[in-house]
Amino acid sequence: MEVTVPEAKLQLLASVALERMGIAAEDAALAARVLVLGELFGISTHGVGRVESYVERIRIGGIKARPDIRVERVAPTIARVDGDNGVGPLVGMRCLEAATAMARESGVGIAFARNSNHFGPVAPYSYIAAEQGFASIIGSNASTTIAPTGGKEARLGNSPVAFAVPNPGGSPIILDMALSVAARAKIRNAAKAGLPIPDTWATDKDGKPTTDANAALNGFLLPIGGHKGYGLALIVDLFAGLLSGAAYLTHVNSWSETPELPGNLGHFFLLIDVGKLGPQEWLAERMTDFAAILHATPPADPAKPVRLPGEFELNHLERQRREGITLDSALVERLQALAGRKQ
Amino acid sequence: MEVTVPEAKLQLLASVALERMGIAAEDAALAARVLVLGELFGISTHGVGRVESYVERIRIGGIKARPDIRVERVAPTIARVDGDNGVGPLVGMRCLEAATAMARESGVGIAFARNSNHFGPVAPYSYIAAEQGFASIIGSNASTTIAPTGGKEARLGNSPVAFAVPNPGGSPIILDMALSVAARAKIRNAAKAGLPIPDTWATDKDGKPTTDANAALNGFLLPIGGHKGYGLALIVDLFAGLLSGAAYLTHVNSWSETPELPGNLGHFFLLIDVGKLGPQEWLAERMTDFAAILHATPPADPAKPVRLPGEFELNHLERQRREGITLDSALVERLQALAGRKQ
Repeated sequence: MEVTVPEAKLQLLASVALERMGIAAEDAALAARVLVLGELFGISTHGVGRVESYVERIRIGGIKARPDIRVERVAPTIARVDGDNGVGPLVGMRCLEAATAMARESGVGIAFARNSNHFGPVAPYSYIAAEQGFASIIGSNASTTIAPTGGKEARLGNSPVAFAVPNPGGSPIILDMALSVAARAKIRNAAKAGLPIPDTWATDKDGKPTTDANAALNGFLLPIGGHKGYGLALIVDLFAGLLSGAAYLTHVNSWSETPELPGNLGHFFLLIDVGKLGPQEWLAERMTDFAAILHATPPADPAKPVRLPGEFELNHLERQRREGITLDSALVERLQALAGRKQ
Repeated sequence: MEVTVPEAKLQLLASVALERMGIAAEDAALAARVLVLGELFGISTHGVGRVESYVERIRIGGIKARPDIRVERVAPTIARVDGDNGVGPLVGMRCLEAATAMARESGVGIAFARNSNHFGPVAPYSYIAAEQGFASIIGSNASTTIAPTGGKEARLGNSPVAFAVPNPGGSPIILDMALSVAARAKIRNAAKAGLPIPDTWATDKDGKPTTDANAALNGFLLPIGGHKGYGLALIVDLFAGLLSGAAYLTHVNSWSETPELPGNLGHFFLLIDVGKLGPQEWLAERMTDFAAILHATPPADPAKPVRLPGEFELNHLERQRREGITLDSALVERLQALAGRKQ
């Protein structure tokens, strides 16, 4: 059954649930903001449902409720952030704040985080940055699910990365993506339904492309574009994991296999103050023209007009801000139970 | 027939050929350096053969031999570069210099170029940056060959982009790629040979994936990873074309269709001084471990070990620096003719 919850109410509910696990009120609100925005965008796999797994991991000691997050500015535009094994979206928001401050001052700012955890969906950070006038490139590494091209052992994460450019006259353009052709969940669904999968999604355990969903579940996700996607996943790990001082490749601990151990994930947050490049009207006019040119492309199927990256999610956000956020009622009840009272 | 030319000799030959078209000696040397490095990497489609097309375009007035390239620093870490319709690799090298200076000072630097032309291969810039201790993200837009996902008209270029991280203890990792699954040249070769192509390479003119190479030549290149690659091509154009003040999407003039008009291409050069993140030994150790983990992946085919992006090209560079650069003798003769004497 589905229920509709207003944004402010869900923000409070998620915050209080995190607070009840010992997270400081201000920190809980920051982390909740990322997850609620994820929910607003319709990215429900990375929405408030994650609160439950954070709570679970804090309980077993895999994540610290009261981390001592330290931001060290090693250059006017570079910060190293030690997440001290706090919840990922909190570390992410601290990185975003640090990069924002540096970019406002100098034009560009980059924050590198180590000792962090899964930081939730990426688009919320990109959106917050865009609303303040910053273009951004933001990424995180992840535990290993992808084999390098030509290999038959997972050594790379399906690292998420997002690129965004603000539009002072309308919606930003936000590309938020993982680097596999398909998510593991899609393969799991095919296996359950007894259906084959396209041979471009995954390999079997020997690194050979397969259409057998069960064989794929024992194998590896295939990156987009073959060696190009392998290269991109590797680059995200170099920036997010290696340069940040975090774990990288097979050094990353898997949340699902060893939830009691710190993941030591890494992130990078690069922000650019595009207001330095020209007046708001100049940028608004160009962004609107850019979107119009793409929207005006004759569609291959007249029923399916050409869309921009993030367009679906931003429309979803607007509608859900107006009409409330649609959620599974059982999830809301579980969050209410975690929050300890009816919020 | 093939000949072998030492790097220094090829550098001189390419420089003098460009000088003879009226380009200032220092500028010609900079532009030649990019093309010679491309040749060293084995990227011969973007090597010294390009000198001929630059010469041709200068002759018909499509490119200025003596541009007044202006670098305007709009923030401590952001420069806007007006290429004044000079040859692309010259504008590119000026951007690289500007971004290097800012990154050395502040940690990060980004240069955005407008009024430029095809800037050659990307890897040489990434390599020069890496040799000086900078990680980089560098990209350019291009004239349109890709239809947006779901569209049936080319509105995006096959925009090249490169990401690189230096290794003070060995080779940098450089990922230099275009965003289509396959290059147009590969489809042309299949058409000539009367062979079908995989249905993932291109669409026909109606935007439907095709295995018919001739239909593909009348259609559009498919980006890697479907909508993900479409998104990436669009992001490169946003950074390189839109934010820089250059032309973007269908506003870019095609070199092949209107060679007499300025292309007004745009580029971006983002450099990060990774020396600020830790001592050289720290970075060298991590980069070497990172490469070792990937190289040690059990290969699907024992005859084909797992490689890193750019590895083939960097090995090629090392060998050709030692043994000389292998070139088509007819090309060398044409360059000698352009240079006006035996170099």
